[in-house]
Amino acid sequence: MTALTNKQGGWVQRISLARPGIGDNTADAERLCQALMRAFGNRQVRVDWQLLPQLPHMLRQGDFAVKATVFPGREGLVVIDLAPASAPSSPILGLAVDIGTTRVAIRLVDMETGKSFGETSFDNPQIAVGPDILSRIHYAHSQEGAKELARQIRSAIGRESQALAKRAGLDSGRILAAAVAGNTAMTHLFLGLPTANMIREPYIPVINNPGSWKAHTLDLPFAPLARVFVFPNIGSYFGGDLVAGIMQTGMDAQQEVAMLVDVGTNAEVVVGNQDWLMACAGAAGPALEGGMSRIGMMAAPGAIDRVSIDKKTRAIAWHTIEDKPPVGICGSGVIDLAAGLFLAGMMDIRGKLVPDACAGRLIEKDGLPSLVVVEKELSGTGQSLCLDQADLDSLTRSKAAMYTILRTLTLSVGVEMQKLTTFFVAGTFGSYIDPESAVTIGMLPDLDRSVFCSVGNTSLEGAALLLVQAGADERARQIAGRITYLELNVNQEFMNRFSAAKFYPHTDIARFPSVAKKLGAASVA
Amino acid sequence: MTALTNKQGGWVQRISLARPGIGDNTADAERLCQALMRAFGNRQVRVDWQLLPQLPHMLRQGDFAVKATVFPGREGLVVIDLAPASAPSSPILGLAVDIGTTRVAIRLVDMETGKSFGETSFDNPQIAVGPDILSRIHYAHSQEGAKELARQIRSAIGRESQALAKRAGLDSGRILAAAVAGNTAMTHLFLGLPTANMIREPYIPVINNPGSWKAHTLDLPFAPLARVFVFPNIGSYFGGDLVAGIMQTGMDAQQEVAMLVDVGTNAEVVVGNQDWLMACAGAAGPALEGGMSRIGMMAAPGAIDRVSIDKKTRAIAWHTIEDKPPVGICGSGVIDLAAGLFLAGMMDIRGKLVPDACAGRLIEKDGLPSLVVVEKELSGTGQSLCLDQADLDSLTRSKAAMYTILRTLTLSVGVEMQKLTTFFVAGTFGSYIDPESAVTIGMLPDLDRSVFCSVGNTSLEGAALLLVQAGADERARQIAGRITYLELNVNQEFMNRFSAAKFYPHTDIARFPSVAKKLGAASVA
Repeated sequence: MTALTNKQGGWVQRISLARPGIGDNTADAERLCQALMRAFGNRQVRVDWQLLPQLPHMLRQGDFAVKATVFPGREGLVVIDLAPASAPSSPILGLAVDIGTTRVAIRLVDMETGKSFGETSFDNPQIAVGPDILSRIHYAHSQEGAKELARQIRSAIGRESQALAKRAGLDSGRILAAAVAGNTAMTHLFLGLPTANMIREPYIPVINNPGSWKAHTLDLPFAPLARVFVFPNIGSYFGGDLVAGIMQTGMDAQQEVAMLVDVGTNAEVVVGNQDWLMACAGAAGPALEGGMSRIGMMAAPGAIDRVSIDKKTRAIAWHTIEDKPPVGICGSGVIDLAAGLFLAGMMDIRGKLVPDACAGRLIEKDGLPSLVVVEKELSGTGQSLCLDQADLDSLTRSKAAMYTILRTLTLSVGVEMQKLTTFFVAGTFGSYIDPESAVTIGMLPDLDRSVFCSVGNTSLEGAALLLVQAGADERARQIAGRITYLELNVNQEFMNRFSAAKFYPHTDIARFPSVAKKLGAASVA
Repeated sequence: MTALTNKQGGWVQRISLARPGIGDNTADAERLCQALMRAFGNRQVRVDWQLLPQLPHMLRQGDFAVKATVFPGREGLVVIDLAPASAPSSPILGLAVDIGTTRVAIRLVDMETGKSFGETSFDNPQIAVGPDILSRIHYAHSQEGAKELARQIRSAIGRESQALAKRAGLDSGRILAAAVAGNTAMTHLFLGLPTANMIREPYIPVINNPGSWKAHTLDLPFAPLARVFVFPNIGSYFGGDLVAGIMQTGMDAQQEVAMLVDVGTNAEVVVGNQDWLMACAGAAGPALEGGMSRIGMMAAPGAIDRVSIDKKTRAIAWHTIEDKPPVGICGSGVIDLAAGLFLAGMMDIRGKLVPDACAGRLIEKDGLPSLVVVEKELSGTGQSLCLDQADLDSLTRSKAAMYTILRTLTLSVGVEMQKLTTFFVAGTFGSYIDPESAVTIGMLPDLDRSVFCSVGNTSLEGAALLLVQAGADERARQIAGRITYLELNVNQEFMNRFSAAKFYPHTDIARFPSVAKKLGAASVA
């Protein structure tokens, strides 16, 4: 992974200009820009027009030594803040934003040092219009609908960034730059762009490379000259959040072939290296993102994020986020739970609860067998927390879809999964997924565990990286330009693979030797 | 000269895009921009963000055939207007602006056809602060002063463009693009930039390449997405007006070496061709720009712009602009008048009025001999129009300065003036100068008259050219980048040359054989 530092040079540069003289009468703006161009790999740099009136005084006040903050503008780079280098320094604030369909995460960073001033996450307010992408896309058929959804998400980001800054003793009105990553639909709805053509053949977004926007045109309460960089999308089904993720893992810059899986409602997978990048995405169902009937929830205080089951006593131990009384279970918890149930024999290879093994924990709810995960007495809701068979079936489909997509992608590029040396597992919401559990249920391939690298919310991390690493905007665009998108052809072969993957861990247990070993020869006979 | 047509392709393009399909799911914005890039020599093109929400509907409404107006944005090109190609067409309006220190000229053009909808000129309202550049630069020492001067010129341009559009039955609110040329100080004061460092060593402007601005940030009452291109300057003493002029003459693109002289308070001279361009500028005095004591005036209705004197009867015949009763004399008229006086023996080779020859027309005013050019009865002012000896002395210095600068520049590059095949004579204000008269008084070299090409206000013409010729913005920048500026070294040699040029036509009459011929051997003995 690329470290979150500005070793490669950040957007904030302290620079000494040659003083003008009779033999060197370059204008002030060009003098500054030429020096900055050298600092930014010969990319075009210009001065925001609103800084021009103060420029002559500013340069001379600091005897031509300045601290300049540069950020991507519409096309080239633009100087958005300038101070004499000798002036007392206040931090240059940047805001990283990951807009998820369900949850939005933001982080406030010092653009010069990379230091975080804190982060927070909150529900995407568009949920009120519709919890899923499709209902929002329908809502945004009209320009008015698109505008309204944009207003919702922007005002939430504005409000939350103000609160976040305040908690850190800072002022959101001094945020000079933001980097926003989201899937293609979320990106469009953030920018107020209609999405109608994204969901009908041939699935055309309005724009794939939205570039940099002035914060005030997006009604964000940042500094007057603040710019907002929006990560590029590849197409309707592969968004800027994945581009940010790829950048954050650094897999686009390595010689070895690596794989990145983003586990969520949509399973998004990339494989490749510095020479090529191949991606595909497909619906995995909501099970991994807290979208189950009652018990499922996003990662939030009180969510069960870790589960282990004693094979002998079948006692269920769990951990919640912030150690709050449990109120639900998030993606990483569900995967742990299913793995535990399976290894303890409480769930069979078809993903069905085994009544005998679950005895004492099994009740019936709405006509379905239901497993009590947390007893009423320990629950934070006042009611027992139960996982029913429908939830498990939903998880089974999700994990099968995920594995099938992984397999289809690797087959398409002729890469043997066993040869991968790095396998990044990102989970945008929920705690870090435990690869051990994910392999046990057959969601991820049975590789040496050291190959797996849980990377959390890579979209937010990638956005934060963009704020502190000069040139990261070009890198993001390059990544987007390099990706070949594999259109998933849901044909008979795919369906056969999917059916085989709906078993725990898989019909072909030979593919999961470590799981077979755990189960012991007897239980898989 | 480059013709004012869009033969090379204009900013308004009618273009048919490939329709999207399963095999071609490029996003709408990128689809349009890629097609436009091909039309604009592979320059980056983007869609103004305010057009993005309508883009999908607009493309599909016209079945992917559109009329797109593109113009230079901050760095790359930007689509600022879009309509289905089949929609009823209204003209795409552009405004060419030449900001002179004294006079401002504007012209409204159809950006698609190059057709002019009319033009007008008006006093630079900053005259109220100070008639000359220096007093305004002093006023603009403070940011407030600079802002106030900017407000004055911008509101005048706004007001006059509204009136101009109205007269043509059009709406200035539909002006989509403007091109503004002016000297470096006028450009700075238009943009509200402080000019203090321009007039003290080492003479540093704030910016040489201001590029393109959004019209609304300049408070101009144009279309919401309108852009304003501001011609680049070379330095404090060679401005965008000359760059526009060079472009308009086409001398930057020709193999033959040509010369361009802009006759005004400042004498600005360029010599060069497609391979090199050398320029210099120097004070020529106000005589040629209507700046004489009483009789001098800018080109305006009632200004004497043509004069001829009968050698035998010494009768003075004149012509006024719009044939109005004479109220003064403009630059071209003064040159004609001096040439006529000299050839008729009414002025000697030192530029002094000859009492005997002027008999009947000579009076004394404020202790100075003064020549009645227009009798009281014929005058539009109710008073006779007189040229006094001080006016003539002022003209003598101006014409001498002009010739000296021409000679210094050609000597510096080793070009023999006699070898020039084209000699453009621009006069920003005043009618076209008659080269015959200018040679007679020794202001311009004695070349074959077919070599001279009077080109009027090349600054305004160049600005108009920019509005109709795609790529003219890059060409303007290239011209600015290619010019070598010769710092006039006012040393003894220069002063000797200047002294020799203060005679009519010159102490060395051999340099002016055609004038010698006219005078006849006797009068120059």
